Amino acid sequence: MNRRADLIDAGGITSPLGFRASGLHCGIKANGKPDLSLVVSDLPATASGLFTTNLAKAAPILVCQEHLTASSGRARAILSNSGCANACTGPQGLADAREMASLASAATECSVEEVLIASTGVIGVNLEMAAIRAGVPRLAEALRPDGGADAARAIMTTDPFPKEGAVEVTTDIGTFRVGGMAKGSGMIEPRMATMLGYLTTDAAVEPSLLYRALSDACRYTFNAITVDGEPSTNDCVLALANGASGVVIDEALYPALFEGFRLVAHHLALGIVRGGEGATKLVSITTSGAANEADAWTAAKAIANSPLVKTAVHGADPNWGRLVAAAGRSGAAFVLDRARVRIGSLVLFEHGRPFDERAPLAAEYLQGTNLDIEVNLGTGGSHTATVWTCDLTAEYVKINAEYRT
Amino acid sequence: MNRRADLIDAGGITSPLGFRASGLHCGIKANGKPDLSLVVSDLPATASGLFTTNLAKAAPILVCQEHLTASSGRARAILSNSGCANACTGPQGLADAREMASLASAATECSVEEVLIASTGVIGVNLEMAAIRAGVPRLAEALRPDGGADAARAIMTTDPFPKEGAVEVTTDIGTFRVGGMAKGSGMIEPRMATMLGYLTTDAAVEPSLLYRALSDACRYTFNAITVDGEPSTNDCVLALANGASGVVIDEALYPALFEGFRLVAHHLALGIVRGGEGATKLVSITTSGAANEADAWTAAKAIANSPLVKTAVHGADPNWGRLVAAAGRSGAAFVLDRARVRIGSLVLFEHGRPFDERAPLAAEYLQGTNLDIEVNLGTGGSHTATVWTCDLTAEYVKINAEYRT
Repeated sequence: MNRRADLIDAGGITSPLGFRASGLHCGIKANGKPDLSLVVSDLPATASGLFTTNLAKAAPILVCQEHLTASSGRARAILSNSGCANACTGPQGLADAREMASLASAATECSVEEVLIASTGVIGVNLEMAAIRAGVPRLAEALRPDGGADAARAIMTTDPFPKEGAVEVTTDIGTFRVGGMAKGSGMIEPRMATMLGYLTTDAAVEPSLLYRALSDACRYTFNAITVDGEPSTNDCVLALANGASGVVIDEALYPALFEGFRLVAHHLALGIVRGGEGATKLVSITTSGAANEADAWTAAKAIANSPLVKTAVHGADPNWGRLVAAAGRSGAAFVLDRARVRIGSLVLFEHGRPFDERAPLAAEYLQGTNLDIEVNLGTGGSHTATVWTCDLTAEYVKINAEYRT
Repeated sequence: MNRRADLIDAGGITSPLGFRASGLHCGIKANGKPDLSLVVSDLPATASGLFTTNLAKAAPILVCQEHLTASSGRARAILSNSGCANACTGPQGLADAREMASLASAATECSVEEVLIASTGVIGVNLEMAAIRAGVPRLAEALRPDGGADAARAIMTTDPFPKEGAVEVTTDIGTFRVGGMAKGSGMIEPRMATMLGYLTTDAAVEPSLLYRALSDACRYTFNAITVDGEPSTNDCVLALANGASGVVIDEALYPALFEGFRLVAHHLALGIVRGGEGATKLVSITTSGAANEADAWTAAKAIANSPLVKTAVHGADPNWGRLVAAAGRSGAAFVLDRARVRIGSLVLFEHGRPFDERAPLAAEYLQGTNLDIEVNLGTGGSHTATVWTCDLTAEYVKINAEYRT
């Protein structure tokens, strides 16, 4: 089947038909910035989610999982707050998370099981429920078909900019849209989920296909990024599909849905890395020549999380030895004499030998902000993986040393 | 058997009888600092080594392993250079490493198999052999029984201070000494070895017992530290035992040797962390309540390497949520509701609840430079592990962004 996916200018979570959103300041953040966000489908919608594998799961994660089970994969509203993660908050935290869902249910007139909730911010602090109680009705009144930008702003913590995106997918059967928003920007190395990522579509998708599209798309996007190697307590990606476009996704149309999800998730995921705490560069780390797919990912993640690689990139130092060292200690099969390191278009190490004469050109390339690095693991295998990371800067240290002060 | 171990004031690698050492600048480092170091036993000595598990092993590692095999665990000299790791240098690097051993063999009149060599510094650059050829004879002439401090200085790279230590072990049978030196201070998370660590003893120890003492001692010392989670291409710990004290180690005396090794290795390992790149604080991370020993280590390493934990410690922020999040995503069994976090003597999280009223006291405690943190994983198990780490600072970023400039 023919298909085409086009980016929607200034698109976001409400670009698909039949979605409204809003965001405002309710009083959780001391600095007066937006901290409460709502996304609602006007029609009944199927829903799916991927959640953090961290064993210290936050209360809203537990509530989302309960609700998706109870509703058999349906949801109409996502209520989120920033400024407080509601993680490690014990029975009170769970009660607060349930109350958040009740408040959204009352304000949007959907059943409580059809509400998904998310929180992001400081761990170990209880939610200011009075602020949320007062905020949710106002939030529901503020819902607008062009409210995506407000919603995206209200889920930010240390993010330097909001992450939004949308595509229009045209097929022989009809046209549908996928929209999304996400937040970063520290405690980022999602494992089967990400900090907070939301996708909407106006295609009709039954829950099992929705889950498949979400997990397939996340594998190469949200699950392929890292800022600091820290899967959080609150990671989740949620998807809503309301069918407002009239397009019904079946097996034949599945590739079109996957493509729409993948494109929006890719855009959001790279936005998270670009906006990583203190980040000044976006770096694509590709491993090739891996003995198997798991090794390709293991080595790519090890390189992408290496503080020595990330500081070298920050300093525009083509220190390919750190790339080799990170690959060599990653646990992946690695053959030094057949390994190869490429920075941009420059091979700096191959057949066990450095090409130091190319270092000045590589240093110049590394002055850029959008970088491409490849390490061939030299096993003769054909497996590859790509992970996106950012540089490690003094600003990252400053942000996280002073996060709560 | 009775035994007692006493720290030797200003002790080091030559505190045991029958060892001499020297260090000087031969021309590898551009800044004129010492870069060539030699340790020699006047008597034949047994030897053992632990080497990096990084698959990108440097040439000197390969040569040490060959020599220890060829000599059946005997060695008399350790020649080291700093300023160049001789790693990822292909056939030329291996030839250079072999030539280093030959040069030391000629200058000290021991067989080439009795020479161990080590290199530390930039990866991917060939050794300046002309400088080493000219330096080794001078180095051999400079050997002195009180030359340990010179040798310890000549293996430093970004280390802010040399790491030396020695103990005298008194037993019913007689007295022997253990001395040592080490260097850090980046690319530090030794796995079965460390950056560079050397131990000497004037006890007589047959190679298999020497290996056992070395690996037992390293397990809780060199292998229990981290600066940046980066096992290097050149990690090794070497031990020489020359019997000059007349004390022969047998099974009955093994605990005394182990204690001597452990104490010196502990002192050196903590020195590496204290002198970690940019470090301002030494932090002991203990996990307890682990389901098994492997889990205890896994969680302790995950916490100790967490950039969010390390930046919070730097900022004196008692952000225990980051400790819980790191334990929860470590892969170790973890039960949130029964977990407990202690910072100094203050329990900040227990039974699923924060004790925020103690946060100001904990913040005050974290202003210190020698910190003790414990996370009980809440599984009901009784296994524990302790890992030493340092804080993550803007200075670490600066050092590693500008390492080669």
